[in-house]
Amino acid sequence: MNLSMTAAPAAATEPCDLSATEAAAAIAARELSSQELVASCLNRIARRDDAVRAWAHLDPEQALARARAADARPPSGPLHGVPVGLKDIIDVAGMPTGFNSPIYPGYVPAADSACAAMIRKAGGLILGKTVTTEFANRHPGPTRNPHDPARTPGGSSQGSCAGVADRQVPLGIGTQTSGSIVRPAAFCGIVGYKPSFGEVSRVGVKPHSGSLDTLGLCGRSVGDVELLRAVLVGVPYRPEAPSCLSLRVALCRGESWEAAEPCSRQAVEETAAALVQAGAELRELELPPAIFGGWLDDHRRIANFESARSFGHEKRLFADKLSRDLYEGRIRDGERCTVDDYIAAQRRAEAMRGWMDEAFDNFDVVLTVAAAGEAPLGLAHTGDARFNSLWTLLYTPCLTLPRGTGPNGMPLGIQLVGRRFEDERLFAIAGGVERLIAAGS
Amino acid sequence: MNLSMTAAPAAATEPCDLSATEAAAAIAARELSSQELVASCLNRIARRDDAVRAWAHLDPEQALARARAADARPPSGPLHGVPVGLKDIIDVAGMPTGFNSPIYPGYVPAADSACAAMIRKAGGLILGKTVTTEFANRHPGPTRNPHDPARTPGGSSQGSCAGVADRQVPLGIGTQTSGSIVRPAAFCGIVGYKPSFGEVSRVGVKPHSGSLDTLGLCGRSVGDVELLRAVLVGVPYRPEAPSCLSLRVALCRGESWEAAEPCSRQAVEETAAALVQAGAELRELELPPAIFGGWLDDHRRIANFESARSFGHEKRLFADKLSRDLYEGRIRDGERCTVDDYIAAQRRAEAMRGWMDEAFDNFDVVLTVAAAGEAPLGLAHTGDARFNSLWTLLYTPCLTLPRGTGPNGMPLGIQLVGRRFEDERLFAIAGGVERLIAAGS
Repeated sequence: MNLSMTAAPAAATEPCDLSATEAAAAIAARELSSQELVASCLNRIARRDDAVRAWAHLDPEQALARARAADARPPSGPLHGVPVGLKDIIDVAGMPTGFNSPIYPGYVPAADSACAAMIRKAGGLILGKTVTTEFANRHPGPTRNPHDPARTPGGSSQGSCAGVADRQVPLGIGTQTSGSIVRPAAFCGIVGYKPSFGEVSRVGVKPHSGSLDTLGLCGRSVGDVELLRAVLVGVPYRPEAPSCLSLRVALCRGESWEAAEPCSRQAVEETAAALVQAGAELRELELPPAIFGGWLDDHRRIANFESARSFGHEKRLFADKLSRDLYEGRIRDGERCTVDDYIAAQRRAEAMRGWMDEAFDNFDVVLTVAAAGEAPLGLAHTGDARFNSLWTLLYTPCLTLPRGTGPNGMPLGIQLVGRRFEDERLFAIAGGVERLIAAGS
Repeated sequence: MNLSMTAAPAAATEPCDLSATEAAAAIAARELSSQELVASCLNRIARRDDAVRAWAHLDPEQALARARAADARPPSGPLHGVPVGLKDIIDVAGMPTGFNSPIYPGYVPAADSACAAMIRKAGGLILGKTVTTEFANRHPGPTRNPHDPARTPGGSSQGSCAGVADRQVPLGIGTQTSGSIVRPAAFCGIVGYKPSFGEVSRVGVKPHSGSLDTLGLCGRSVGDVELLRAVLVGVPYRPEAPSCLSLRVALCRGESWEAAEPCSRQAVEETAAALVQAGAELRELELPPAIFGGWLDDHRRIANFESARSFGHEKRLFADKLSRDLYEGRIRDGERCTVDDYIAAQRRAEAMRGWMDEAFDNFDVVLTVAAAGEAPLGLAHTGDARFNSLWTLLYTPCLTLPRGTGPNGMPLGIQLVGRRFEDERLFAIAGGVERLIAAGS
């Protein structure tokens, strides 16, 4: 297993190769202009777009004009002059939003989403809209895995993850209702992070399932994602010192373990061994079947019951323009779920959250698989979300780190899960694990 | 105290006087056309609009055309041909949405909100958009209390409640983040209902506080609101048999009791006495200070922290077009709240919800005040929300019933609170209490 593989090259040769924190520091120090950075990203996109197809909307002239305007202003925040790609279900004033659906041709939102406004307030630029699966469900867009165009980048936040992995943009925003940020980030070999439920505003993001939808962030390092998280939460950016000393790690195999490929399990087990080597205390996390027995069904019931209502407008007027995946697989299934079954699933999910919160008294972080394995061949299927949807249901922060490659040379990820609302602690731990991996462990 | 006072007259003389369930039944039986009903509502509005000013957008020709189209179609659902008024923060495709703000002139949403789509699917008509306070916060619109135009109708769902109370429309939809449906319904002498948090989709409703915003429903009887709730949840309409037999009632005075006027406390105590007379078992609900001590501050922290982010776009570009109430009172306050204080408030709120859910093992319903007293004089202030915001924070369903009048002849309400996710049980109880009140108890 080649451990050094990451999406970033060994040495940065162009501004687009810089991490977000490096680029922000260089711009703040006037060693780099926003215009140079954006032009470098646009050049990279021009060279690579035929292969990767990460963008649903991109207006290079407008992006350069915004960069020049940023260069002309005094620095206004920690993202000053740094471009971000936003998934095409997230409103940006003045940019078309298409949801990867034929239902909204030419639709341009009147207002920024909360996250777009927070990025702009922090001095950042919206480079463009990144490809999403249809309404952030399963029906894929044209995006390809930058490591192998014959393979899916995963979904639903496919453009954000592929674009960041390919160094077309340093930061991306997506969403996660099941596994829509962690899985594609793992498939693309970057850091993907789903915040604690409720901590990052979803205003202006097309809803799928109100009880589960969470923004998702991606970048090429833990520090980059941490910077973007501070901007989106609206708190000062004070990076945590990376630390995985005296760590109590809970290895979660769970029922999904056997469904993961050996390479993915091996990445987790080798990370666990490296952590032990570094002084961590390792235990197994057993999820009691009496509480967690039906979580996958409960996640589906909640997601689909709510989706059947969220898409009330589209299903009433445009049912023929919805994919079968969305219409039959989600909406019709959600219509068949009774309100009593929905409520029972919500109550069980609350019990699971309570159990998990108490369980975190006994460990600092959960270590588990991020995806079944390498990104599968083909673009039609974006992969299995079961390795992620439990943590979405539990409202816990979770983060995938790239760790090595699989039998086909594609990136593999591992997943770290923190206690709900202790996202900063998770960043400290993930930063430590990231160093451990970089050191070859 | 005059107990028989309600907004409806003694005998229905025009279609607009019919309750929603009566109107729906008459339309289904072909004894009434939707066109007759809508024309009657429009006539009532034409006569009363100068005094009440409940509507932010109304297109009579379009409304009549929709009614004629409904009459030409076979019945399509339980609301067939029945008009509903929607608060002007709720998207309706093709109708302007203004939020009672100068920031969005001419804005017309591209899609229906989930609730608008559910109403149309059930055969209902959107009559128009009803006046809201600015972005459903405190800065009032022009709406007056139909019982006395010198008094506020309450807020923020002021147009929906005033319009329903004045028989301009049989059903209205608003929202509640603090007390925005129950308080104006009580001030206007109608039934107002906030569902269990999470049960009715908020898709397409301008967000204020994602953790607290809930749709609110209003009508002139418990049965009408129950019908509308079934439509919005997307479940078959099977009205509960009204029942307050063998009821275990918890009277909640709490810390807010002394802040209520004597007339409001008397309405609650007389209702409690009537319930005991009818065989109910009465107990006091004491909220333990160790758990509930800071609920009002916690509600404010959560609401304002989230509002500061929800209005990220408006505050960045249009701060000068926001009222001081919203900008200083909410947004700036929310910016000053640290994320740690926000998280602590969320954790305490979750503990309160857990406590209340267990407490419901010992009683069937909570009885408490709905508002401080009668609607205050003047239009500048919409009243004190503290009698409602606890139940919004607790995610419990709550409902106000009109009960008698106060010293100035204005309507008074009482409030019933059910266990979270047991909204149907609350309707059964409220139906029983409604009968008890109608019988003069």
